[in-house]
Amino acid sequence: MNDRPTPADAFHLTPIGIIESDFPDKFGIPRQPGLATAARASLVLVPPFDDPLAVRGLTAFSHLWLTFVFHLSPEPAGPARWSPLVRPPRLGGNAKVGVFASRSTHRPNRLGLSLVELVEIDTSHGVRLGLRGADLVDGTPVLDIKPYLPWAEARPEARAGFAPEAPPTLAVSLSPEAEAMLARRPDGDSLRELILQVLAQDPRPAYRHGAEARIYGVRLRDVDVRFQALQEQTGPTTLRVVEVLSAEGRT
Amino acid sequence: MNDRPTPADAFHLTPIGIIESDFPDKFGIPRQPGLATAARASLVLVPPFDDPLAVRGLTAFSHLWLTFVFHLSPEPAGPARWSPLVRPPRLGGNAKVGVFASRSTHRPNRLGLSLVELVEIDTSHGVRLGLRGADLVDGTPVLDIKPYLPWAEARPEARAGFAPEAPPTLAVSLSPEAEAMLARRPDGDSLRELILQVLAQDPRPAYRHGAEARIYGVRLRDVDVRFQALQEQTGPTTLRVVEVLSAEGRT
Repeated sequence: MNDRPTPADAFHLTPIGIIESDFPDKFGIPRQPGLATAARASLVLVPPFDDPLAVRGLTAFSHLWLTFVFHLSPEPAGPARWSPLVRPPRLGGNAKVGVFASRSTHRPNRLGLSLVELVEIDTSHGVRLGLRGADLVDGTPVLDIKPYLPWAEARPEARAGFAPEAPPTLAVSLSPEAEAMLARRPDGDSLRELILQVLAQDPRPAYRHGAEARIYGVRLRDVDVRFQALQEQTGPTTLRVVEVLSAEGRT
Repeated sequence: MNDRPTPADAFHLTPIGIIESDFPDKFGIPRQPGLATAARASLVLVPPFDDPLAVRGLTAFSHLWLTFVFHLSPEPAGPARWSPLVRPPRLGGNAKVGVFASRSTHRPNRLGLSLVELVEIDTSHGVRLGLRGADLVDGTPVLDIKPYLPWAEARPEARAGFAPEAPPTLAVSLSPEAEAMLARRPDGDSLRELILQVLAQDPRPAYRHGAEARIYGVRLRDVDVRFQALQEQTGPTTLRVVEVLSAEGRT
């Protein structure tokens, strides 16, 4: 039992499914699940796991755990690529904490864990789980699904160190040009809601939290959302959507 | 993005640490974390992850997620070893549900997820995390540690299908011989508490839940706990600890 594992003890894990989501890029994705409920996402099971029997009884649960791989984070190629410290955005991007005291995507084994709401299960062609509140980039490989057990896993009394509550949100406004673009789309209402929820989380890098001239772009569904930080006199920073551009042909 | 993953897309994951616990065997382990708080467990980080920097700031969190491998479950050797249905003990061992609607250990990728309490961190020789409420067999390989975020992950309102609440517990009693054995041990009090908590969860197979003559054995720490199911006239089944034997030299 005291034998220490070595790299030879590696476990070989295969995706059971792939995420399809409103987040084509990492940038802009809320930093925890449940913060952008307007985001559409599905988990599509892949062969041989796309068997409707495998999800029998799952609709009786309202919430699921997804264990997945942060596949866009650098692959750990041996100990040299491993860093014990990270800079969480919640600490302004300056203070360092241990990687195991964070939910950073840059971590050994690149494992992610998200609690999501299960909205529906479609078994007409393979298995597709409709999800709400997912914080997952399109194409994320999923390794496991487990039902959420509130009597074992809801611990509202838990202490949560440097992240004791949900992050504060920013006010967001849209330019007339952005509103006009959204009005022309069949999914305009839900896309508008998604833009408001994503920008309220302030996706800018942690070290740039004042007002500034720079225009950022965040991709949601098939559009590029261009936004800027504004500051009223003595007021808080707000984010202003300058324009919403079709991203077609740009991928 | 619509490329489907194949077995060639397997991810190679390496343990970051190994569990040392009061459960030398699978039999008797509570079926969810938090049900046997008297169980002692440590997570010992292994090189190169045994760096105290990697857990800096972690003591500010009271609860942790451990992602681990059910390494004693059969290794999935290709699709032939994969079964979409399991028989959860909560349904009496008769009804089948989908493996992804269960927390069964027999699942693709054999991934486990446990919410445990963090009691202390010892960095005097490498890194050792003292845990409470762990439901993990001695020797379990751990792949990741994440802090628990109650504002994101405590959802007391979640619906939980066929497992809506903690399993009912049985009354447990100890024979005078068992009490005498415990009285002679320095850890007698905590071992007694552990025995009561573990047996209250009724570790017997789901299809044997009446009273019966059979004597079961469950290994805890370095002892074999021998117990039997008794039934009072018209009363509920109770579990009676017949004797507590030293398991020394038997492993």
